[in-house]
Amino acid sequence: MSASWLDEIRWTEEGLVPVIAQTSAGKVVMFAWMNRESLALTNKTGFAVYWSRSRQRLWRKGEESGNQQKIIHISVDCDEDVILLEIEQQGGIACHTGRESCFYRTLKNNEWLTNSAVLKDPAEMYKK
Amino acid sequence: MSASWLDEIRWTEEGLVPVIAQTSAGKVVMFAWMNRESLALTNKTGFAVYWSRSRQRLWRKGEESGNQQKIIHISVDCDEDVILLEIEQQGGIACHTGRESCFYRTLKNNEWLTNSAVLKDPAEMYKK
Repeated sequence: MSASWLDEIRWTEEGLVPVIAQTSAGKVVMFAWMNRESLALTNKTGFAVYWSRSRQRLWRKGEESGNQQKIIHISVDCDEDVILLEIEQQGGIACHTGRESCFYRTLKNNEWLTNSAVLKDPAEMYKK
Repeated sequence: MSASWLDEIRWTEEGLVPVIAQTSAGKVVMFAWMNRESLALTNKTGFAVYWSRSRQRLWRKGEESGNQQKIIHISVDCDEDVILLEIEQQGGIACHTGRESCFYRTLKNNEWLTNSAVLKDPAEMYKK
């Protein structure tokens, strides 16, 4: 946790950094936040661990759905305040709606239209 | 400014939304923020207009460097609180360091290593 690469990040006042997750094929699949511990764990374990702001706890992506994100690369931006993950999306689904990407609505004629299909029923993804 | 598609965005308390800009080729080139006015202007003008939090004013991307971002698509995520832009990057440079992307450092053996070259001297980009 004392690694200097973590010290180079400019964390928000809440100790967080915004994170973009993108597949190696170039698809941006989600956006979330990390704190220092989750970024360290992401690097150490090789799988994305976020910080859930709503639940105020570590969120091991895929912990319920099984759709983990295997880390290929971790990059930082010029201001050291945004992280970009290159990932391999297990199951091909990042969104809780069962789609590949959370960005599944695109503006057309001033309306948000769905641009991609549900690949798996969320009820199937989250059943215990 | 009263368009309902804007009302569907869940703005932060400061009235902002995080924005990811990605080229059509799949390169994530930058991350910034928009307020309602800048997102409306982005859609209306067809070029990315951000909200500069440091300068507290509209920031027409490329206003100094000439490196505008032509809008191809505007998408929103499942929570309606993040925007993804598909853009055509004029000049091929989004970063103020003269690189294609702001995400030009990648973690390797716990060090941030530069992954891409400067395409144009920033002194040339921002000279008056």
